[in-house]
Amino acid sequence: MVKRTAQDIRRRNRFDTLRCVYAAPAPVSRQDIAAATGLSFATVANLVAELLEVEVLVEAGHEESGGGRPRARLAVNAERGVLLGIDVAETGIQAQLFDLSLTVLRSVELPLPGAKVAPADVVETIVTGVRELLASTGTPSSRVLGAGVSVPGLVEREGGVSVYSPYWSWRDVPLRALLAERLDTPLYLDNPLKASTVAEMWFGAGRDVDDLVVVTLRAGVGAGVAVDGALYRGATNSAGEWGHSCLVLGGRECRCGKEGCVEAYVSTSGVARTVRELSPDSPLLRDPDESAVVEAVARAQSQGDPVAVETITRTAHYLGTALADLFNLLNPQTLVVGGWLADRLGEPLLRHTREVVARQAAPQPPEAVRLQRSTVPDNPVSLGAATFALEGFLNDRETFGPVKAGRRNARGARTRTAP
Amino acid sequence: MVKRTAQDIRRRNRFDTLRCVYAAPAPVSRQDIAAATGLSFATVANLVAELLEVEVLVEAGHEESGGGRPRARLAVNAERGVLLGIDVAETGIQAQLFDLSLTVLRSVELPLPGAKVAPADVVETIVTGVRELLASTGTPSSRVLGAGVSVPGLVEREGGVSVYSPYWSWRDVPLRALLAERLDTPLYLDNPLKASTVAEMWFGAGRDVDDLVVVTLRAGVGAGVAVDGALYRGATNSAGEWGHSCLVLGGRECRCGKEGCVEAYVSTSGVARTVRELSPDSPLLRDPDESAVVEAVARAQSQGDPVAVETITRTAHYLGTALADLFNLLNPQTLVVGGWLADRLGEPLLRHTREVVARQAAPQPPEAVRLQRSTVPDNPVSLGAATFALEGFLNDRETFGPVKAGRRNARGARTRTAP
Ligand SMILES: [Zn+2]
Ligand SMILES: [Zn+2]
Repeated sequence: MVKRTAQDIRRRNRFDTLRCVYAAPAPVSRQDIAAATGLSFATVANLVAELLEVEVLVEAGHEESGGGRPRARLAVNAERGVLLGIDVAETGIQAQLFDLSLTVLRSVELPLPGAKVAPADVVETIVTGVRELLASTGTPSSRVLGAGVSVPGLVEREGGVSVYSPYWSWRDVPLRALLAERLDTPLYLDNPLKASTVAEMWFGAGRDVDDLVVVTLRAGVGAGVAVDGALYRGATNSAGEWGHSCLVLGGRECRCGKEGCVEAYVSTSGVARTVRELSPDSPLLRDPDESAVVEAVARAQSQGDPVAVETITRTAHYLGTALADLFNLLNPQTLVVGGWLADRLGEPLLRHTREVVARQAAPQPPEAVRLQRSTVPDNPVSLGAATFALEGFLNDRETFGPVKAGRRNARGARTRTAP
Repeated sequence: MVKRTAQDIRRRNRFDTLRCVYAAPAPVSRQDIAAATGLSFATVANLVAELLEVEVLVEAGHEESGGGRPRARLAVNAERGVLLGIDVAETGIQAQLFDLSLTVLRSVELPLPGAKVAPADVVETIVTGVRELLASTGTPSSRVLGAGVSVPGLVEREGGVSVYSPYWSWRDVPLRALLAERLDTPLYLDNPLKASTVAEMWFGAGRDVDDLVVVTLRAGVGAGVAVDGALYRGATNSAGEWGHSCLVLGGRECRCGKEGCVEAYVSTSGVARTVRELSPDSPLLRDPDESAVVEAVARAQSQGDPVAVETITRTAHYLGTALADLFNLLNPQTLVVGGWLADRLGEPLLRHTREVVARQAAPQPPEAVRLQRSTVPDNPVSLGAATFALEGFLNDRETFGPVKAGRRNARGARTRTAP
């Protein structure tokens, strides 16, 4: 039995309180937070006092309360510091600078070398991106409260964080240690599936529901799962590898070495492959780059090109069948589909997919099947990575309990008592 | 955001405390419970005081504590009352009577009519089974604290509990209401997947781990999921329908109306079908009853019958591929395989399945893949059903907080203050 300490419960309550402030369209009172979270007013008041003390929250005016004392409204203190969110994808990175309200202040995109990508390439590109962000905004590095980094693959958090990335043939790469040699800020590593899911929990569909599945479709494919308002990580932080579920027994070869994986059908390269199977001479394949093929399909389907239309139909058949399995196994309150590929193929893909899911989700009753596109603005992966940094900043602070051995404090801790 | 009230937390802590007492091989002290659960001593003392007051726990001797006051040892009060656990399967029911320590006192098995089973048939058979159990043990019905009933299909808990069972073409059957007309005891309905999982959580692999998946293979096939020590139900209590995941796109017809479902390959009828595909004239098919075919395969494979051996190999290929998908998606601390079919085909099936899973579970690292057979003695489904009744008895009692509108109290509540 895993122990749930008083500190775990307190941490969970703190996140619920803070998520409530982030999710609200306008500043909220302690009473609003208590009503939304189910926590007692005393608990909320206590947590808010801490968050005010470390200047993560600020008071933003008062509301009248029918004769009683006016109630203070609370908001996130956007000026408290900045966070970095870095999305390392297969072909390039996007690095974003956020204020503490998680508004994007600046973005930069940098390509990775086309061929085999080594850990040193990724480190160098991240460092360049961070320097550009700070220099172009005149941000001193002392203002950075933390950097979240999303890397494709499995991010093992035990023993100092190492990355296993089949795509680049990385195994046990101590990426956090390599980055820590170059960047003087607390680092939080995870993968795009978990980053997208956290972004959805704080800023998307997860504001309203506590059990959701977030499917990400891009070069890689996977699913993040939130249970009872918390990110589900699994035993070794490698839950969500839905992209390598078997969709077609004995089907297409997948880059993971297996056959018939979901990813071999509904990723960027999977869609390009469907086009090649349907019509090897199609003009949609003129530019052999797989992203370019997807762009061409998106354009051509709106003009009724038969190969593009059939590609969407087949992709929806594969995707809908695989999503129906997720509904059957996890019965989420809602399932969110996002990622570059979903954005590019957009409503036509989703519309067809919904039809397939409706047929295939039996024995689930139809009303149990809620499928929606991500509503998180901009890039959910870098936003989610920055959210990991926010969570880490709050978890690591001495204010909130004993600091874990071997982890340094967030920089903010030193300036906390400054005026 | 779903509210987590102080009552929810208290309820969770109470279950953790009680599970700790049930799981221990010998009576435990309050200090043992605090150490095992991570709860404070004060919280444990408080919860134990409640459980002693309602006589669910009793003091069972003392232990010396090195000079201090001797520590009381606590045990479950087996004599406190009895619980019923009823496993309604496709072809018959098993009803069991348990004492409060969840030891089986008596079992009875009754067949269901072979053809189309109506709700009235199931109600009548359950009532007969319960009467037999009580009469043969001389148990007055006033001693029954609750009855847990597992029925195959989806058990919708909103609006009074109704059952949707594709196998019997039941839809919106108000089974709890029908049973309540005949049985004067609190009733708790769910399906075999969830019952098996709860049994595993209290009495099997779940005593040591908090994130587990429990796969049940019998006429129906499915998976139960426990997250963070709690049964995962999903939005409409229909999580776990893994049996109707797509294993072979466009494959065998399934009784759910779809094609290529896991259940069409690794259920009792799926195995019989594999034999028929391999060798339509095999003597293994002499008795056309599908359970009899499985029994014949189990016997013949130990004598090296090539059709039986190949049936096991193919079944392991299907099962291993499907289980690898569960490992990839959920990354559980352990995955437990149980149910009649798993028991009959036993180690030969599991051994081959492990080999397939080891190959197919990429990108999971091999050490993340722990596959084991169920260690729950006897029938996990009826045990789990009785455990639901125990949980319900504790949840419903006024002692532990306001009783929910429309739910009657467990009978025990009335006798609580009796000497
Ligand atoms: Zn794969
Ligand atoms: Zn099916």
